[in-house]
Amino acid sequence: MNIEKYPSKLLETAVNEFTKLPGIGRKSALRLVLHLLRQDAEAVNFFGNSIIQLRNEIKHCKVCHNISDTEICNICGNHARNQSVICVVENIRDVMSVENTQQYNGLYHVLGGIISPMDGIGPAELEIESLVKRVEEGTIVEIILALSTTMEGDTTNFYIFRKLKDFPVKITTLARGVSVGDELEYTDEITLGRSLTNRIPYESSLGK
Amino acid sequence: MNIEKYPSKLLETAVNEFTKLPGIGRKSALRLVLHLLRQDAEAVNFFGNSIIQLRNEIKHCKVCHNISDTEICNICGNHARNQSVICVVENIRDVMSVENTQQYNGLYHVLGGIISPMDGIGPAELEIESLVKRVEEGTIVEIILALSTTMEGDTTNFYIFRKLKDFPVKITTLARGVSVGDELEYTDEITLGRSLTNRIPYESSLGK
Repeated sequence: MNIEKYPSKLLETAVNEFTKLPGIGRKSALRLVLHLLRQDAEAVNFFGNSIIQLRNEIKHCKVCHNISDTEICNICGNHARNQSVICVVENIRDVMSVENTQQYNGLYHVLGGIISPMDGIGPAELEIESLVKRVEEGTIVEIILALSTTMEGDTTNFYIFRKLKDFPVKITTLARGVSVGDELEYTDEITLGRSLTNRIPYESSLGK
Repeated sequence: MNIEKYPSKLLETAVNEFTKLPGIGRKSALRLVLHLLRQDAEAVNFFGNSIIQLRNEIKHCKVCHNISDTEICNICGNHARNQSVICVVENIRDVMSVENTQQYNGLYHVLGGIISPMDGIGPAELEIESLVKRVEEGTIVEIILALSTTMEGDTTNFYIFRKLKDFPVKITTLARGVSVGDELEYTDEITLGRSLTNRIPYESSLGK
């Protein structure tokens, strides 16, 4: 079925707007719009305004470039956290992923992407200079590179490593290995190989 | 992964609002919100306002109860259409489905649901009285009942039939049968049975 004729221009506009969102086709968009039509006007106004407000009022933390409601985000401003470790991530979602592990108590630095010449993203487009400035201040002890293990991620890691290698700061990266719960049989060779190379004392695997 | 900590209240509010939509979970909602954050403020404002405007300004046609931008919808107001036939459907989406067949040139009547005691929907909740009024006016020649073939649909069909049977109006319903392109082997017995009972002259199947 090809939905093309809309009984109302307002409906058509709203459907068109929803189809601009990733992963939402015309049929889903129509379903969402008709759902909204059945809700209280107050709830729909709140929904619409929450989107507008989000886009217009949200800030980026001046220190780590994570999104924030304030000039300095809750993480950078929290002095109970370890202010001498920075975890470098690609985007906001990665901050949330690391936070959800509840295994990390340091700070972050959100690059806003990774070096990808194919997409026209070079080091200048990313928050790399501001990371170097944070390290220059001298209070940072360790930088954890937590980018994806793609070619772009590796390139970005290496670029940052070269920029920081002359500073008295430890540069580490995430351990790569067999996922918890995974069977060896189904693990790719590169991952399994890295798990072997970076093997750890048995006792330390008992910790968590 | 359990996404719970949001770096911003504005972000959290927008994500919560999106999760209220049918079929959108927390992960999809976050993805949509982060997508909106990357768009121009102007585009996002337009999106938000299109939703608000839709909910506050859309009307229901006074005649057929389809949604409309005007008091009388484009279909009811179109005198090139056959004003003596009414197709009775459950909702707006069904109007669009029938319109997209391009096989129908009459009017509609949107009930706004079907009789479903389980969901507390009785005849009084639906636009049945207004349908009877349209028939009473005396210009309608045929009523096509195009509700779904569920028990609720059948109940509603029968209720409407009883309300209208004393008027000089032909009451028809959609032909049920094997879908175009379907193999008999995979058609359920009830549908195949109805296809047999309601068999048509071969010549009339050649039309379209």
